Amino acid sequence: VPAAEGRVPPERLAALVEGVLHAWGMPAEHASIATAHILYADLHGIDSHGCAMLPHYDRLRVAGSLAMAPEITVVREGSTTALVDGGGGLGHVPADTAMKLAIAKSRECGVAAIAVRNSGHYGAAGAYAALAAEAGLIGVATSTSAIRAIVPTRGMEAMLGTNPIAFAAPAARNEPFLLDMATSTSSLGKLRIARQRGERIPAGWALDSEGLPDTGRTLGTSEPRLTPLGASPELGSHKGYGLAAAVEILAAVLPGVLSAPAAPGSGRRVGHFFLVLDPGRFRAAGELERDVDVLLDGLRGSEPADPALPVLVAGDPEHAARDERTRTGIPLTPGVLEELREVARTSGVPFVLDEQD
Amino acid sequence: VPAAEGRVPPERLAALVEGVLHAWGMPAEHASIATAHILYADLHGIDSHGCAMLPHYDRLRVAGSLAMAPEITVVREGSTTALVDGGGGLGHVPADTAMKLAIAKSRECGVAAIAVRNSGHYGAAGAYAALAAEAGLIGVATSTSAIRAIVPTRGMEAMLGTNPIAFAAPAARNEPFLLDMATSTSSLGKLRIARQRGERIPAGWALDSEGLPDTGRTLGTSEPRLTPLGASPELGSHKGYGLAAAVEILAAVLPGVLSAPAAPGSGRRVGHFFLVLDPGRFRAAGELERDVDVLLDGLRGSEPADPALPVLVAGDPEHAARDERTRTGIPLTPGVLEELREVARTSGVPFVLDEQD
Repeated sequence: VPAAEGRVPPERLAALVEGVLHAWGMPAEHASIATAHILYADLHGIDSHGCAMLPHYDRLRVAGSLAMAPEITVVREGSTTALVDGGGGLGHVPADTAMKLAIAKSRECGVAAIAVRNSGHYGAAGAYAALAAEAGLIGVATSTSAIRAIVPTRGMEAMLGTNPIAFAAPAARNEPFLLDMATSTSSLGKLRIARQRGERIPAGWALDSEGLPDTGRTLGTSEPRLTPLGASPELGSHKGYGLAAAVEILAAVLPGVLSAPAAPGSGRRVGHFFLVLDPGRFRAAGELERDVDVLLDGLRGSEPADPALPVLVAGDPEHAARDERTRTGIPLTPGVLEELREVARTSGVPFVLDEQD
Repeated sequence: VPAAEGRVPPERLAALVEGVLHAWGMPAEHASIATAHILYADLHGIDSHGCAMLPHYDRLRVAGSLAMAPEITVVREGSTTALVDGGGGLGHVPADTAMKLAIAKSRECGVAAIAVRNSGHYGAAGAYAALAAEAGLIGVATSTSAIRAIVPTRGMEAMLGTNPIAFAAPAARNEPFLLDMATSTSSLGKLRIARQRGERIPAGWALDSEGLPDTGRTLGTSEPRLTPLGASPELGSHKGYGLAAAVEILAAVLPGVLSAPAAPGSGRRVGHFFLVLDPGRFRAAGELERDVDVLLDGLRGSEPADPALPVLVAGDPEHAARDERTRTGIPLTPGVLEELREVARTSGVPFVLDEQD
């Protein structure tokens, strides 16, 4: 099936990504795993966390702050827990390793918790939580971020990463429930797009250098200062701030990266946290999946404010994007295409996105 | 020490609460545990979840939908998991049982997850998470709510409870980090107070019967329709909605109360979920607590927008209320005092709050 105009077949984008990672010195097995997680983001419509990250990864690599063939080790392990060391590379492979270990341990023991230290950007948190749901388990995936972006309630300074939380649970007839959210109101990606286009942003997304709501005036001149989910004290921003701090405890304090020195050129050291729970220890086989269906069907069937915009459940936009992009290809902006072309050129990898079917 | 004017000594309020619960037929040991959790809310400034709930509990009891001497049983148990049945009573004792069992299991195995079914209102979720932090562990406590109050993003109907999430972690020099938040923007209690006072509420807290932002116009005439944390689609309400649904999966679907028939007069059956994690499986003794201090000190020390309002961390308001109320007594509004007097009278319990020191 030829891709629609301006769109790239997923398998061709995967070949480019895998080729670039391999050319950078990533071992073949690691490049295959990392590519699968990068493509997950591109396929599921999470455009800021997929192939568009390659130029950033390249800058870190050139700056010497990203190991391309790190040793990924389990430094501590018990029946239900483990501490994984990412070896100073990208996060996809250590995160994949940790989530699969958590899945195996939870099948054995009922529940498992794994923390990862000395890691890097791992793409979309939902990709890892989804692995648990695909295995019939409940999964949680969180991560800190190298860049401080969230300003505490009452504060002026960006102190916490956008610290995502992903939660997935399996259903019987439905796709899994799949929540994948930053603990900020908006995202660095949306601010970047607004800045590039010279557009104003909604009041509540960011603060200016005086701590006042920023609607675009200072976005180009200051470091991003995102509000926590809730946007303002009146609307509960202390809750989003509290969630971001809780993620910092699980994914930075617990694996021991909070007080680790920053990597040169890459900001803070990144940590992750994964939790997996086997519903078979609580319900008879199939009962949880059946009741998740009841919940999801009930929510989707509830009355919408606008009949043209039905009520959705977490994961619906991502699953719809995946279905559509699998059919018609992955849309890439001209800017991302040019950046990928340059990355391919400097890496000595053929730019297969230009090829015709 | 005499209590300040209009304030009640905590020990006297505890005596009244315990006396009433006992008079309702709650066994002495259960009444003591439930009283401790009810007083936790009153002491920590969570006024809507403490003794002010007694008149509501009384109405449920009189309606025959609240067992006062339920059999609380562990119906399924593994090394890291358990399913507890609350026997159709209040939630405080089954929740206390479940959290203490999770603490014991996590000490043994590293991590433990416990779900509770057939339960009722358990007061402040933070009280249970705090038990884990006091034991040197990381604790999570969630619960569904009998009343549907949160309207999904894009929706019109209240479909989910205010489904709280509590998260606690121990520190060395600091009080524990203690997040205790509803997944709604505001709370039923704040709406009730606004209605009683005839005040308008901020746009973003609730919807009117047409699904539009309600600032007070219809609060008195319609069932409450709270927005999820995030308040509007533009400010990320799909994230708060997703968190509320994730809590519904953990605390209703997992223990099997989602599709259970509603209790007569009390709304939906209530379920809880608890998770405890032993940081000693990841870090050397004392390291986690030391780094939680680094995190909390760093956040509190960051620059405030208004120098008169320093940056706080989750738990600060509750710990300050506890310190102040321990010294000066618990403030009760005239309305709550009158309701408690009536509950004491109909229960045949002396109204000790009138006594002088």
